[in-house]
Amino acid sequence: MRTLNSQELRDIASGSAVLGTGGGGDPYIGTLAALRNAEQYGSPRLMRADELDPDAVAVIPFMIGSPVPLIEKFPLGKELKQAYESLSHFLDKPVAAVMPVEIGGVNSMVPLALGSLLGLPVIDADCMGRAFPEGQLVTLTMDGIGLSPMAIADERGNAVVLNTIDNFWIERFGRSLAVDFGAIAAGVGAPLSARQVQQSTILGSLSYAERIGRAIREAREHKEDGIAAARDATDGYMLFRGKIVDVQRRIERGWTLGEAVLDGMDEDAGTHMTVRFQNENLVAILDGEIIASVPDLITIMDVESGEAITTEHLRYGFRVAVLGIRCDPKWRTPAGIALAGPRHFGYEIEYEPIEARMAARAASGT
Amino acid sequence: MRTLNSQELRDIASGSAVLGTGGGGDPYIGTLAALRNAEQYGSPRLMRADELDPDAVAVIPFMIGSPVPLIEKFPLGKELKQAYESLSHFLDKPVAAVMPVEIGGVNSMVPLALGSLLGLPVIDADCMGRAFPEGQLVTLTMDGIGLSPMAIADERGNAVVLNTIDNFWIERFGRSLAVDFGAIAAGVGAPLSARQVQQSTILGSLSYAERIGRAIREAREHKEDGIAAARDATDGYMLFRGKIVDVQRRIERGWTLGEAVLDGMDEDAGTHMTVRFQNENLVAILDGEIIASVPDLITIMDVESGEAITTEHLRYGFRVAVLGIRCDPKWRTPAGIALAGPRHFGYEIEYEPIEARMAARAASGT
Repeated sequence: MRTLNSQELRDIASGSAVLGTGGGGDPYIGTLAALRNAEQYGSPRLMRADELDPDAVAVIPFMIGSPVPLIEKFPLGKELKQAYESLSHFLDKPVAAVMPVEIGGVNSMVPLALGSLLGLPVIDADCMGRAFPEGQLVTLTMDGIGLSPMAIADERGNAVVLNTIDNFWIERFGRSLAVDFGAIAAGVGAPLSARQVQQSTILGSLSYAERIGRAIREAREHKEDGIAAARDATDGYMLFRGKIVDVQRRIERGWTLGEAVLDGMDEDAGTHMTVRFQNENLVAILDGEIIASVPDLITIMDVESGEAITTEHLRYGFRVAVLGIRCDPKWRTPAGIALAGPRHFGYEIEYEPIEARMAARAASGT
Repeated sequence: MRTLNSQELRDIASGSAVLGTGGGGDPYIGTLAALRNAEQYGSPRLMRADELDPDAVAVIPFMIGSPVPLIEKFPLGKELKQAYESLSHFLDKPVAAVMPVEIGGVNSMVPLALGSLLGLPVIDADCMGRAFPEGQLVTLTMDGIGLSPMAIADERGNAVVLNTIDNFWIERFGRSLAVDFGAIAAGVGAPLSARQVQQSTILGSLSYAERIGRAIREAREHKEDGIAAARDATDGYMLFRGKIVDVQRRIERGWTLGEAVLDGMDEDAGTHMTVRFQNENLVAILDGEIIASVPDLITIMDVESGEAITTEHLRYGFRVAVLGIRCDPKWRTPAGIALAGPRHFGYEIEYEPIEARMAARAASGT
């Protein structure tokens, strides 16, 4: 268990944006919320999953909805507390810790902000090891563990509690409710036992995000390449360097759907990449060929700042690099691929691990 | 307090379909559910609102969603019990009675079916005095009384509890959830105090429905005109007699929207009537002129059976009569007209009470 200072919180947000793979919310908003609560209520504490008392339960606070309104509406205030209190009615054990549902610029920080407010430690783990656009795409689903009961609330005083038979129903109801709430709402769900946290989540992911964020910051401090630092910290691949020449984006059922088209620069001059997204980046297409896909991570980084860019911030003219990063091994099992592989998102291709795709390309000399 | 026998239950369903004004569900389904539970668990008891203990609370069970799937899915089974149990968690007083949210072929019968199951009396009152397609259109809304907390459940085991700041949010969330649930679900909401029931609901409406249903049945038994009997029992107006020549119907956000076009017969030969509906009939248009509108009741009755026809049963070729019936005086107040008058449903006309419209037509000789 360690207490996180403001630089560590900023590093977590920055690295989480890389692992958020285009989604998971704007790290600027997430950082503000965590820093504000750290100052007001005390710094959050990060604990290992094995430090959780065997009889304790942990809950999962998060924001849902399209990230675009999140930019306009500063969240993580009373709606989060109200969601927590609405859930508490249903629990027969006191809550001993909080943890993120996903790693992303906002949703990594929500438990840290709530942990400060409630004086609860935050478990160094999450349920995706990245961000995904649908609630059932958590490793818990593979083990039959529900995110239910889940409370969702807004800042007006409305609260809804979901008790569902599985995480597909959670997603179905949560998606509609997020739209009704005005496209953004706070949720708290899934009381998990210590055993469930240790067996069925992705351990160490907040400190992994912190290492990535720190590497980017230190590179910047030394006037080095932040993108290369992020690649090295994730053992990832530089998929493309180019300039954004087109961004298509639309909001549908609470998701931001679309694509960014990039013209190559430097060694990629003369080639083109399209990155398609549904909140998160789903596939990277180089000159018509998919070279990386979910559940592996595809992250667009800004060459100027060396930071990850979320889908809502993609703009014409930005010079960017596209990183490919291995997903957690849980997503590479048959159950993981069935749940969150390319076919789930409508791409009729077999999932191939990014390192296999890269090795094949290297061998063929492309 | 009196115990209802099976004939009284059938009469209530039949009369409720008249007051359901095209919506509120199929009285055949409602009757089946109430009779089944009466047989299995004991006959339901009907009580006057003033028989309710001053410290008691009453809850409101109902079905939501488009009536079309209700025909295909026999409801009122375990989803209703689950909704009741989900709500009970939130109540600090035991429930002493149940009552309908609206008067309609199904929603009048739901509390009777649940009353049998739980051994609770049913209050002779409802919250609309008719059926309406939206949850906020209850007399409670005029007095600032919420339908929240409300539990909604399906037969699979999913349950959602809504805690909202007003009945407009109940409608917003409930509508989306009904669609997600598969267009039909059971709900139980609004713990009401005895004082709230007496002051802010429509008293005596189940026995009013029973009198209408009995009048129709007795007319049929005596080979007399059931439609004239319903008109007399409601002190209503015969607006039109004709044959259905067209029915347009579509499902949108859980509502059945559309219109029926009628060619006149008998003294109405040579004229045409259009009845527009959103689950319930909203306006009756005679040769281009609106002659009756919400919140007054417009009911299409089958000349063959003498029974009311719900919107989902309207078919080409049916010979029908259209009745116009005064709504409860609560709906004729400025607050009532603002909440549920023609403008709420997109008709840019002033509400005029049906008896004023009829008097004006009689005076002008049309």
